[in-house]
Amino acid sequence: MSTRLPVELPKAYRLLNHGPTVIVTSAHDGTSNIMAAAWSMPLDFSPPKVAVVIDRNTRTRELIEASGEFALNIPSRHIARETLAVGSASGKDIDKFRALGLATFPAGSVSAPLLEGCLGWLECRVLPEPTIQDKYDLFLGEVVAAWADPAAFRNGHWVFEEGAPRSIHYIAGGHFFETGEAFEVER
Amino acid sequence: MSTRLPVELPKAYRLLNHGPTVIVTSAHDGTSNIMAAAWSMPLDFSPPKVAVVIDRNTRTRELIEASGEFALNIPSRHIARETLAVGSASGKDIDKFRALGLATFPAGSVSAPLLEGCLGWLECRVLPEPTIQDKYDLFLGEVVAAWADPAAFRNGHWVFEEGAPRSIHYIAGGHFFETGEAFEVER
Repeated sequence: MSTRLPVELPKAYRLLNHGPTVIVTSAHDGTSNIMAAAWSMPLDFSPPKVAVVIDRNTRTRELIEASGEFALNIPSRHIARETLAVGSASGKDIDKFRALGLATFPAGSVSAPLLEGCLGWLECRVLPEPTIQDKYDLFLGEVVAAWADPAAFRNGHWVFEEGAPRSIHYIAGGHFFETGEAFEVER
Repeated sequence: MSTRLPVELPKAYRLLNHGPTVIVTSAHDGTSNIMAAAWSMPLDFSPPKVAVVIDRNTRTRELIEASGEFALNIPSRHIARETLAVGSASGKDIDKFRALGLATFPAGSVSAPLLEGCLGWLECRVLPEPTIQDKYDLFLGEVVAAWADPAAFRNGHWVFEEGAPRSIHYIAGGHFFETGEAFEVER
């Protein structure tokens, strides 16, 4: 079972600030789905907001539009293979949770399930902006709850020690970068 | 002088796909400015589009709204200190190029100058969406030209060899992650 502690909402943007690839989970009316998204970012600090691109041809898009909710899960390198797989197969064709043996646990405030084995989780409610949803597949959301694995992120900060679990950054064609060395710049 | 080669536009999203912190440059009517932005992402492949958050209280915001153009510059770790500095000081108070000794070169298609010492550059024209600009400080742009330092990115791919120059990922409070080890996942 994933270890997790709540993240104070004004610090939740820090889970995404360095640009990791995320996994989007969603659910509506007894159906759930999971897909990868390289294109997400924070949009505001407090209340925290996020932006994420959700292609119009995906099952995830249908579930998010129907429920008005989604979650962003931040995978570690240990589940890079699963991240690629949920970004390649479509929930219109298969039940990706079952096909890939993915375990989830319930979110606190939204219907979307949260994926085990991740470093952080952001529970989001859609801020409806139909024009940009239609024109650009761009969805905005308010973060209503956030969680993190304290081995990776605790007390509002990523754990800097070497060996702490790190997130991943998708490039293309099955290629990723791992999040690398942490460093501090003096002002 | 920064070495640079053109990047094919359908591959330009790969410069941003892994979520690096960027530096936004802008110019209008003989004035230019430079600021850091942790919050940017690709929005489409071809024609390539990007999204970036530009705070309403910045000089950069004024210049982008006046010119309809901006550039995203992808800094390497060698200029992390300058990245933090241009994200801390305001162009309303000082000329950051002069104060920090930052060298630039002309873009090919937009008025914004491009910053020396970066790994990649995306020249962008604003796709006007006044509602989300006003409500969320969120700007969308079409990438009209892109460039990269071939030591870091060439033939449409980041250079995977160890020792290749890497981008940086801002967290908060002067803390960054470097882009780490590249790896491939088999489908």
